[in-house]
Amino acid sequence: MNALGSTFKVTSFGESHGDYIGCVIEGCPGGLSLDLTRIQQQVNRRKTNQSDFSSPRQEDDLVQLVSGVYEGVTLGSPIAILIKNKDAQSSDYDHLKDIYRPGHADYTTQLKYGTRDHRGGGRSSIRITAALVAAGEIARQLLAHSLTINIKAFVTQIGTVQWQATDADFTQAQIDASAVRCPDTATSAEMLAHIEDIRVKGDTLGGVIQCEVKGLPVGLGEPLFGKLQAQLAHAMLNINTVKGFEYGEGFTAATMTGSEHNDAFGKTAQGIEPMSNQHGGILGGISTGMPVVFRVAFKPISSIQQTQQTVNADGEHVSLRIEGRHDVCAVPRAVPIVEAYTAIVLADLYLQSKLNQL
Amino acid sequence: MNALGSTFKVTSFGESHGDYIGCVIEGCPGGLSLDLTRIQQQVNRRKTNQSDFSSPRQEDDLVQLVSGVYEGVTLGSPIAILIKNKDAQSSDYDHLKDIYRPGHADYTTQLKYGTRDHRGGGRSSIRITAALVAAGEIARQLLAHSLTINIKAFVTQIGTVQWQATDADFTQAQIDASAVRCPDTATSAEMLAHIEDIRVKGDTLGGVIQCEVKGLPVGLGEPLFGKLQAQLAHAMLNINTVKGFEYGEGFTAATMTGSEHNDAFGKTAQGIEPMSNQHGGILGGISTGMPVVFRVAFKPISSIQQTQQTVNADGEHVSLRIEGRHDVCAVPRAVPIVEAYTAIVLADLYLQSKLNQL
Amino acid sequence: MNALGSTFKVTSFGESHGDYIGCVIEGCPGGLSLDLTRIQQQVNRRKTNQSDFSSPRQEDDLVQLVSGVYEGVTLGSPIAILIKNKDAQSSDYDHLKDIYRPGHADYTTQLKYGTRDHRGGGRSSIRITAALVAAGEIARQLLAHSLTINIKAFVTQIGTVQWQATDADFTQAQIDASAVRCPDTATSAEMLAHIEDIRVKGDTLGGVIQCEVKGLPVGLGEPLFGKLQAQLAHAMLNINTVKGFEYGEGFTAATMTGSEHNDAFGKTAQGIEPMSNQHGGILGGISTGMPVVFRVAFKPISSIQQTQQTVNADGEHVSLRIEGRHDVCAVPRAVPIVEAYTAIVLADLYLQSKLNQL
Amino acid sequence: MNALGSTFKVTSFGESHGDYIGCVIEGCPGGLSLDLTRIQQQVNRRKTNQSDFSSPRQEDDLVQLVSGVYEGVTLGSPIAILIKNKDAQSSDYDHLKDIYRPGHADYTTQLKYGTRDHRGGGRSSIRITAALVAAGEIARQLLAHSLTINIKAFVTQIGTVQWQATDADFTQAQIDASAVRCPDTATSAEMLAHIEDIRVKGDTLGGVIQCEVKGLPVGLGEPLFGKLQAQLAHAMLNINTVKGFEYGEGFTAATMTGSEHNDAFGKTAQGIEPMSNQHGGILGGISTGMPVVFRVAFKPISSIQQTQQTVNADGEHVSLRIEGRHDVCAVPRAVPIVEAYTAIVLADLYLQSKLNQL
Repeated sequence: MNALGSTFKVTSFGESHGDYIGCVIEGCPGGLSLDLTRIQQQVNRRKTNQSDFSSPRQEDDLVQLVSGVYEGVTLGSPIAILIKNKDAQSSDYDHLKDIYRPGHADYTTQLKYGTRDHRGGGRSSIRITAALVAAGEIARQLLAHSLTINIKAFVTQIGTVQWQATDADFTQAQIDASAVRCPDTATSAEMLAHIEDIRVKGDTLGGVIQCEVKGLPVGLGEPLFGKLQAQLAHAMLNINTVKGFEYGEGFTAATMTGSEHNDAFGKTAQGIEPMSNQHGGILGGISTGMPVVFRVAFKPISSIQQTQQTVNADGEHVSLRIEGRHDVCAVPRAVPIVEAYTAIVLADLYLQSKLNQL
Repeated sequence: MNALGSTFKVTSFGESHGDYIGCVIEGCPGGLSLDLTRIQQQVNRRKTNQSDFSSPRQEDDLVQLVSGVYEGVTLGSPIAILIKNKDAQSSDYDHLKDIYRPGHADYTTQLKYGTRDHRGGGRSSIRITAALVAAGEIARQLLAHSLTINIKAFVTQIGTVQWQATDADFTQAQIDASAVRCPDTATSAEMLAHIEDIRVKGDTLGGVIQCEVKGLPVGLGEPLFGKLQAQLAHAMLNINTVKGFEYGEGFTAATMTGSEHNDAFGKTAQGIEPMSNQHGGILGGISTGMPVVFRVAFKPISSIQQTQQTVNADGEHVSLRIEGRHDVCAVPRAVPIVEAYTAIVLADLYLQSKLNQL
Repeated sequence: MNALGSTFKVTSFGESHGDYIGCVIEGCPGGLSLDLTRIQQQVNRRKTNQSDFSSPRQEDDLVQLVSGVYEGVTLGSPIAILIKNKDAQSSDYDHLKDIYRPGHADYTTQLKYGTRDHRGGGRSSIRITAALVAAGEIARQLLAHSLTINIKAFVTQIGTVQWQATDADFTQAQIDASAVRCPDTATSAEMLAHIEDIRVKGDTLGGVIQCEVKGLPVGLGEPLFGKLQAQLAHAMLNINTVKGFEYGEGFTAATMTGSEHNDAFGKTAQGIEPMSNQHGGILGGISTGMPVVFRVAFKPISSIQQTQQTVNADGEHVSLRIEGRHDVCAVPRAVPIVEAYTAIVLADLYLQSKLNQL
Repeated sequence: MNALGSTFKVTSFGESHGDYIGCVIEGCPGGLSLDLTRIQQQVNRRKTNQSDFSSPRQEDDLVQLVSGVYEGVTLGSPIAILIKNKDAQSSDYDHLKDIYRPGHADYTTQLKYGTRDHRGGGRSSIRITAALVAAGEIARQLLAHSLTINIKAFVTQIGTVQWQATDADFTQAQIDASAVRCPDTATSAEMLAHIEDIRVKGDTLGGVIQCEVKGLPVGLGEPLFGKLQAQLAHAMLNINTVKGFEYGEGFTAATMTGSEHNDAFGKTAQGIEPMSNQHGGILGGISTGMPVVFRVAFKPISSIQQTQQTVNADGEHVSLRIEGRHDVCAVPRAVPIVEAYTAIVLADLYLQSKLNQL
C-alpha cells in the first residue's frame, strides 16, 4: 500500500517533519548511468517557495542516493533515496495538535491509526512526494535508455480560467517559463491574475493538469486488471487533492456516438497504426503507439487564510485561522509529480512488457 | 495484473469463447454463509439480451462455486467460480480473424502477445466480467456480515441525455425498473428515445454511471498508494470502455475555491463527523464515514452497424460491417459491474483496516 | 498465500472432495505450443493406486485447460487448469467429521478457520497437487523452449534404506521403472521389501527425494530475499509431510572447513565456471550454471492402520482405526510434485532474470 | 525479491560499503511503544569484532528510525531504518575488483547484473542483515504486545563439535555468556578449542543453529503456499551461507514409522492439544500451539586465510590470499539474525491470522 509499481517498484516512507523522507526503488536493472543533475533539477521543480503564491517552507531537498548506485551506475539492487527535512519547526504546529482541519486528513488519520504525527500533515503531506519525483526521474532515464520518450505535463486550468490545449510542440522550458506552468502566454497571465485575486481574499484554488506521453511502443499495459489507463488513474488519484482522471476524450466521450469516436486503423510508412487519436493512445488497456493523453483534476488547497469553524479531538467547537503567507494554488507545483508518477507507471509496464512474448 | 484486490483478492481468467470464464477469490474468511440465489441474481443483472438495445448473445451464466465453499459456508480457502460459455459459435468470427476493428483491442493484443483468440474479443470481452460480478456479490455479502452497507450504482447519462442525480433514497428495484437503469422516470424515457434514435442509424452510445456507498466506517484506504479513491479509480478504469473517473465534486472541484469546497467538522449525536459531503466521503485517501460518491464515464461501444474502413494484419485496407441486431449502449448493463468492483475494493480495504490498530 | 511464484505464478484452489481441484497460471508468455500429452502423463505419474502400497482412490485426473490456450498455443492470458473430483464418496468420511487425527491438519484447520471440509483432508489433501503437477509441466515446457533443461527427481531413501546417489546419467524411464522411483535396482528391491514389512504391520514410512537440475544458465535467483535456494526451500516445505531441505553439501557442510568446501573457479572451453560443485549450483543465491542439487525429507504418512488414541472436537477420547488397503509410503508419488514445484520456481526466476540487465 | 513478509513486510536495501544500509517496515500497526534500547542491543549482538574469531571490521551500527515513529510510538506508516557505514575503506578491496573469489557471489553477481559493487561483497555481504536485525526486534516487540512469546536461537554445532540440545530453560543471557552462543558450558569450550585449532590453520568453520519459539497461538501459517515451515525455510535459506533447514524431527523423520512419529491429541487443563511434539509445533502448515523447533545448517566461511587458485573476470588464473585477522566462524553471530528473521515471519503470519475468521 506504500508502493507504486510492481516490477519497477517505488516504496515511499517518511513524514513531513520526520528526520528524512525517502523511497526505495526495486527492479531498476543494473548498468544504467544516471544523470544525477537532472534528478536534482526535477526535485527542485517541485519545491515550495518558488513563487509568490506558494508555501514559504524553505527546503534544500538535496537528493541522496545511498544504495543501489556505485560510481553513478545502477547496480540492479534497491536504490534508496533520502531527502533530509530541514525546515521542520515542530513547535509551529503545536496549536493544531488536536484540531481536525477541514479538508485535511487529520480526522481520518487519527481515527484509522489511533495516533498521528500532526506536524505539517505528517504522512499525508505533499512534501512526501519530493523523493518520489527523484524516483520518477530515474524511471524516465530508464525509459530513455531504450526509447525516445517524452513525458510532458502542464497546467490547462486554474480555478475558472481554462485553456484548451492543442498538440503544439512546446518544450519543458516553455512550460516552466510560466509561473503557473501553462505554456500559453495569454492564459498564463489570466491565471496569475485569478490567483492574485483569490490570494488577497485568503482563499485558494485548484485546477487541471494535462499530461502527454510520446514515444511509447505498442504493448504497455494488460487486461484484465493491469490496463495502462487504470495504472495511470491509480497513480494520479494517489496524488494529494486530486479528484478526477480522464484519458482521451474522457467524460466528453460519454456524449459521442461510436461513429464519431472510433479511430480507424491504416497503413503508413511506419506500419499499421491508428489514423487518429480520440482513443488517447490506449485500446483494450494496451498502448497503441499513439500519444497517451490524460487530464487530472485538483481540488483547491484546504488550508485557507480565512476563519473556519471546526472541532477538536474532544468534539469542542474551535475557530481556526492560519496566518502568514500561504499556499494559494499548488497545481503548478504538481506538474513534476504528475510526470514522475507517469514515468514510474510506464517504467513498470515497460519492464513487464519484456515478458509477454517468448 | 489479473487480480483486483490484494487481501480480498479476485484473480480473473477466461476468454469470451473458451470453455469457461471464471475467477478465484482469495482472502474470504471462513464461516460466511453465502446467499447463492443473490449471487446468481447479480450475475443475471449483467446478462446480455435483456432489452432491445443489448447484444443478442444467449447465455445461461449459471454460477458454479467449485471450491472454498462447503454446504453453503465459506471455508477460508480459495473460492473458485466457474461459468460455462454456451453460446460460443466460433465460426461466426472467422471473417474477423485477421481484421483490426476500430476501437477494439484486436490490434494491441496481437502486437503485444504475438497471438490472440479473436473470437468475440477473446480476453478483452466484457463477457469476462460475469464471473467478477459473482465475486463482487460475495464481497458485498462479506461486508454485509459486519456492516449495514449499501452500494448502489445507476445511470445518470446516456449520450447527450443527462440527469443531475440527487440523493433521493431510491432502491435497486426502482433502478432496475428502468431499462436504462436511471431511476428518474422522465430521464429514463428520454434516454430510451435517444437510444432508439441512434439504434436505427446503426450507431452506438456511451454514458455515465454514478455510484454511492453508504454505511462505510471511518478508516478504509491508506496513504500513500492505497488511497480509497485510487483503488476505486483503478478498478473502474479497468472496466471495458471506461474513459474517466471522478469522486466528490470531481472535475467541478477544479473551479471552486477552498472556502467553497471545504467541509467543516462538527459534533453530532453520532460523534465527530463532517457536516457536509463535498469531499465525497474520502479525506486523505481514507473514508470519513460519509457516503462515498463517484462517477464513471463510458465511451460509446466500438462495434457499430455502419461500414467502417480499417486494415487487416497484412495492412490491407478492408471495409468492415457488422450485421444483425447489435449492442447500442452497454452502460446500463455495466451497473452491476461497477457495483461488483466497488464491493471488491471495499472488502479488500475493509479486511486491511482490521490490521491498522494494535 | 495460495500461489507459487510471482512472475510465473500458479494460484491453487480446491478441496479433496469438492467439485474440482485446479489452479490458474499467470505470466506464461503467449505463443508457446503446449504438448498436452506430456502434461497428462506427468499428472498420471502422481496418481494413486499405481502400486500395492499406495492409496486405492481411483481418479481419472483428466486435465482440462479451460482458458489461456487456443488451438494448443498459449495466449499470454491466465491458464486455468481444472481436474474433476470423481471418486469423492463423502459418506466414507462421516465418522471422521469431528475427530482430530494425529499428524493431520484437522485440528489446526478447525481452530484457524472455525470450520472445515473434513472429507479426505479437505484443502490439506495431497490430492490438491495434481493440478499443480500439470502447471509444473507447463513451466517445464516454457523453460525447454529456451533452454536445454533437465529436471530429474528420484528417491534416495525410504525409511531406513538409503542410497548414496551418484551423478549417473539415468533417465526418467529408468526412475519410473522402479515402483519406488529409485533408479538403483538393488536399493529399489530393498526399499520394496522394507515397505512390505511395514505394510503388514499397518504402519507407514517416509523417505528422501533428491532432485538435480541441469542446463540452467548463470543468473537465476537474487539477493536478498529471492535467493534460488530459498525459493526452492519454500516450495518444497509447502509439500505435504516434508520436514527438511538441504542443497549442495547441506547439513554435511556444517562439518567441513572452508578449504574443503570451496569450489575454485577456472576457465574451460565454455568460459569461466566453477571447477567443482560442492556448492550445489548456487552461489550468493544465484545459479552458477552448475547442476542444482537438493534433497527433501518426508515424514511417514500419518494415517496408519493401527489403533490410535486421540480426541474429538469436544475433547472426548476416541480410538481411531482406519481399515482397508492404505497408503504405506507416498514418497515415490511425490517425485513428480518435487519436479513440478521445481519447474515452477525455475520458470519464475528465469522470467525474472530477463529483467536484470538493460 | 528484496522483502521478507507480505503483511508485516521488511524491504532491505544497501551495500556493504555504500553510504547506508537499511530497510523499510510496512504493516506495523500504529500505537506500539518501541523499546529503542532493546533494538540497539539486538543489533549489537550481531556486530563483528566481538571475539577473537570474528571479523575485525569496526562499526558503530547505530540504528536510526527516520520515519514511522513519533515520540517512540509507531504511527502505522512505513518505518525506515538507517545504519551508517563507517568503516568503509574502499581501497582495501581494490585488488579484488576483478577477481572471482571461491564460494562468494562475485561471479554470479557480475554475470547476472553486468556490474557490481565489489567492495566487501556489496549487496551480498552479511553486513546488510544489521538493519534487518533491528526490524526483527520491532517484529518481536509487536508480537510481545499481544503474546507471551519467546524466540530463542543458539548454536548446537560448530564444525565437528555437536551438542544434542534438550529443552532446558536457559535464557538469552546464558546463551550470550558463551562466545559461541552454545548454552552448554562443556560443548562451548570444545567449540572454542575447535575454532582456535582451525584459526591457526587459516581455515574456517560452519555449524548449526537451533531455534525454538514458545508462546505461539494455534493458527499461524496456511495452506497451500503459506505454510509456516515454508515461510521459515524461505527466511533461513536467505541468510548467507545457510545450506539446510529442518523442523521437528527433520531428516530423522524420514527414518521413522508413522506409529513412532505421530503425536496424539489429548485434553488438558488448557484445552485440546497435542500430547507430544515430534511434529515441531506445526501441522498442515499451521502452528499447533506447541513450541516451534527448527535447525539451520551453515557452511564454513568462504574467505579463508590460505592461498587459493581462482580466475579473474578475464579468465586469467590468479592466486588469492587474504591477510590479517579474519572471520573464522560466523555462526554465533548469526544467532540474532535467525531470531530476527523468525520474528519477522511470525509477525507477518500473526497479523494475517487476524483475517481468518469472520
